[in-house]
Amino acid sequence: MNQDSILEFRVRYADTDKMGGIYHSRVLEWFEMGRTELFRKKGTPYTEVESRGVFLPIVEAHVQYKHRACYDDLLRLSADSRMHGKARIQCSHLIVHAHSGEAVAQGYTIHACVDSGGKVIRPPRWLVELIQS
Amino acid sequence: MNQDSILEFRVRYADTDKMGGIYHSRVLEWFEMGRTELFRKKGTPYTEVESRGVFLPIVEAHVQYKHRACYDDLLRLSADSRMHGKARIQCSHLIVHAHSGEAVAQGYTIHACVDSGGKVIRPPRWLVELIQS
Amino acid sequence: MNQDSILEFRVRYADTDKMGGIYHSRVLEWFEMGRTELFRKKGTPYTEVESRGVFLPIVEAHVQYKHRACYDDLLRLSADSRMHGKARIQCSHLIVHAHSGEAVAQGYTIHACVDSGGKVIRPPRWLVELIQS
Amino acid sequence: MNQDSILEFRVRYADTDKMGGIYHSRVLEWFEMGRTELFRKKGTPYTEVESRGVFLPIVEAHVQYKHRACYDDLLRLSADSRMHGKARIQCSHLIVHAHSGEAVAQGYTIHACVDSGGKVIRPPRWLVELIQS
Repeated sequence: MNQDSILEFRVRYADTDKMGGIYHSRVLEWFEMGRTELFRKKGTPYTEVESRGVFLPIVEAHVQYKHRACYDDLLRLSADSRMHGKARIQCSHLIVHAHSGEAVAQGYTIHACVDSGGKVIRPPRWLVELIQS
Repeated sequence: MNQDSILEFRVRYADTDKMGGIYHSRVLEWFEMGRTELFRKKGTPYTEVESRGVFLPIVEAHVQYKHRACYDDLLRLSADSRMHGKARIQCSHLIVHAHSGEAVAQGYTIHACVDSGGKVIRPPRWLVELIQS
Repeated sequence: MNQDSILEFRVRYADTDKMGGIYHSRVLEWFEMGRTELFRKKGTPYTEVESRGVFLPIVEAHVQYKHRACYDDLLRLSADSRMHGKARIQCSHLIVHAHSGEAVAQGYTIHACVDSGGKVIRPPRWLVELIQS
Repeated sequence: MNQDSILEFRVRYADTDKMGGIYHSRVLEWFEMGRTELFRKKGTPYTEVESRGVFLPIVEAHVQYKHRACYDDLLRLSADSRMHGKARIQCSHLIVHAHSGEAVAQGYTIHACVDSGGKVIRPPRWLVELIQS
């Protein structure tokens, strides 16, 4: 996986739960933040993808939780994308502690490609190229 | 405030934070759940309000936090609505421990009335009557 | 998978995103709500598990998203648990539309077993029996 | 209000709701992020406050929602703190669009001061000085 570091962010109090670490569903929000920055870095922000009438709802998500992260920890996120078959997109994400490099979570999301009416479509060529760039 | 009890629900692990109680922003989600049930109880679900082209975005929110609530606590919610001036709607909410009746949080939200394009409108008569019923 | 229906709940406005359906990370919160009710139904609430000094942090989560769900939809949740090897617990979850039975999401979570200090432990016998009951 | 700009951040997809803008409770999470950076800027991170045994649970929150914010909008946050009577702390927060300066939300939170057992305490001198610095 050829992932570039994309952004750093801090764990919010809102991200924690009574066990003292992070609540697990928050990692999916962080992955989403990573995809947003990945698309921007590739040159076509995801807002632009949507304004061209293409939406990428998630059809599958997988997360592995590694080392603990706590409130105010500085984390670093990287992400990557590739085609998953001819009609779907797969994004890979990795979150590590910014200082130690220790992994916090990694996982993938698989996205369908739909039009503004929610109908499944083949990803247009510009999108395939964007994903593979 | 003439509030009827509307629904009971349990605190999720997701609602907690590292201090061991609930994370404060979750109370606003619970208030929203209370408004949803309030409208249903009044006879016009909020989904129906929206399908008639009227939306009620929040312009102000106020919460007072009382006794602590913890994971899996059973809470009871009540809510009420009235007009706030001629163009806005005010909803009041109260959350208590279902068994002891001890208050967890109370507060209000003030809502503007907009059309599907986001333009501020006067609340239609049927909505005013619904709110005041 | 021998899952019993455990609870019904409605999609909150807070659960939606700008695409009009539910934001995907919310499904993990619903799964958690399902596990909470599963443990209660088995006779030992998860609060009781924690007060015995055993915690079950998530080490892996997988979700498949099926049919769309929208604000105020009534959903029904079922869950089941089994041992995953000798030291981990696997919970399976299924969320369907309460009226049509159409699947919204399904997935599993894998949990480690740790003590109050966060140290990985073998699940005590009572827990293994609870999980397999 | 003498607020310094503290940090910039982008609206996540997770922050949106079906109306297309942001879901209102998210603003309280952003305020929290602002307080975290405010304490760091003052020289004593909030993690340090807690490791000295002082916790600042919220007893009241107020938010006014101004101009709409949407997915991927770049927002700028400022915050300030002062004593509220002798025993409580008040934080003020303002969120604006980073480019236009247009206000998105503003509001305050009022915090009690408790020890690690949850008992209300008088804010220690170092904390009062920190808050007023």
